[in-house]
Amino acid sequence: MNNVSIIGIGLIGSSIARAIKDINNKTEINIVDSDVSNLKSSEHLALGNSYHTAINQELEKSEVIFICTPISTYENIFLELNKLKLDDCIITDVGSSKIQVIEKAKKFLKNKIFVPGHPIAGTEKSGPENGFKELFKDRWFISTPCEICEENHVKKINDLWKNFGSQIETMSPKDHDSIMAITSHIPHLIAYNIVGTANDLEEDIKSEVIKFSASGFRDFTRIASSDPTMWRDIMLSNKNEIISMLNKFNNDLKKVMEAIQNDDGKFLYDKFKKTKEIREKIIKEGLE
Amino acid sequence: MNNVSIIGIGLIGSSIARAIKDINNKTEINIVDSDVSNLKSSEHLALGNSYHTAINQELEKSEVIFICTPISTYENIFLELNKLKLDDCIITDVGSSKIQVIEKAKKFLKNKIFVPGHPIAGTEKSGPENGFKELFKDRWFISTPCEICEENHVKKINDLWKNFGSQIETMSPKDHDSIMAITSHIPHLIAYNIVGTANDLEEDIKSEVIKFSASGFRDFTRIASSDPTMWRDIMLSNKNEIISMLNKFNNDLKKVMEAIQNDDGKFLYDKFKKTKEIREKIIKEGLE
Repeated sequence: MNNVSIIGIGLIGSSIARAIKDINNKTEINIVDSDVSNLKSSEHLALGNSYHTAINQELEKSEVIFICTPISTYENIFLELNKLKLDDCIITDVGSSKIQVIEKAKKFLKNKIFVPGHPIAGTEKSGPENGFKELFKDRWFISTPCEICEENHVKKINDLWKNFGSQIETMSPKDHDSIMAITSHIPHLIAYNIVGTANDLEEDIKSEVIKFSASGFRDFTRIASSDPTMWRDIMLSNKNEIISMLNKFNNDLKKVMEAIQNDDGKFLYDKFKKTKEIREKIIKEGLE
Repeated sequence: MNNVSIIGIGLIGSSIARAIKDINNKTEINIVDSDVSNLKSSEHLALGNSYHTAINQELEKSEVIFICTPISTYENIFLELNKLKLDDCIITDVGSSKIQVIEKAKKFLKNKIFVPGHPIAGTEKSGPENGFKELFKDRWFISTPCEICEENHVKKINDLWKNFGSQIETMSPKDHDSIMAITSHIPHLIAYNIVGTANDLEEDIKSEVIKFSASGFRDFTRIASSDPTMWRDIMLSNKNEIISMLNKFNNDLKKVMEAIQNDDGKFLYDKFKKTKEIREKIIKEGLE
């Protein structure tokens, strides 16, 4: 590849920049970010070749444009990209929900090539300084091709991610959004919620909560320290799947609360024992 | 110390045995466990000097008896200990809830010395083979003295835990149970619950959940793989604090769900941003 653009130079965008430069140092990378401090950091880190606070004609040279911004910005980005001549350029994204992203692409992108994607990688840290070139190595890249995608374009994006070290999995946008609701979106939502509940306690007990956080709570605070804008947008963009799965979670939690209230030790034991199976499968498949 | 007994040779009991032997190899340790395979493992690992499937008169030589079993067994253990002559022996425990433990000690122990305790240490693994002598090093030991405790006995138990490398914190049983509800019991309950919800999904989606568990869910499966008997007993023995805190959690979650339903991005952003503060305090205090 000779020329690539990255819109949004956070953790994921900056890791893509590093991975591309690692493969071919000569690939020109245009970095676009409306956040001037992010842009300056990425220039300081020499992540790209040109730096822009807004989408402009420089991007017309690109073979691929990666959108790595929160999902609420997509509409504007698509409208800006419509102003450019991007005949053979593939526009792709890394957003954590796919049904709504594809709907937006269909609605707002005019005569452009779009391939939706989602790398299952990240840390709780954000910003260009926290990215690294191996972020995608041995991680999944989920491809969710849809009726507006052509096979050769999907293949080109998949090949790119293979070069970043990822394994490719293809599924429907709907399956993607269901699976992400339970494996990622709800765990984050629950973690934000439990840390929020603790945050509302009185000051004296709150300092004790921090002191004794090692007993389980700390893991939730790590998950709940992820970027708030990104997660706000994920929750809103996958609301149907999240609400439907949260209703299941709430029904289950209600039963557990009733069992505690009624001293139903058998119910609790059976429930706590059953969940070990999933853990054992994760360990068996070498995923931990 | 010349002679110590440990009732229940799981992760915590076996770590205590190792820590004691590390301090003074000559201390005689009597190990009691009704689970013959645990007892055999501990003998194979040479964790003690004598091995017993039940409480018996051998324990009368002990200066300290550690109860390291699930809380539902305490009543029977106290009744068995009542049959022994234990004039100067301190009976202590490591249970994760303290109000109910102290009530049981008051009700069932007759003319015995009891000092409640709780080391904030553990892993998701159980059994004597998973213990290690440094488990309590640089971790908190919470002392919750009550009206049945004499100061010199509390001091002796605290000194013991200091020798294991722990830092001592003293608080009321009520404060202990509130703080543990939010930092430990509810995180475990929520983790068990979310893994349970995933476990009830159809088989085809379940295998995908395991495959993509790295995106948040995996951390919950680790927490939810802890010993089911122990956690059943913790939930039931601290039910008032847990139910009260879960009601707060549920009210908060209801508001989050409404915000998602109503596309209230501001509410979500503010909530997600606020929780970062607790995380920053944990990192600042060197607790991560």
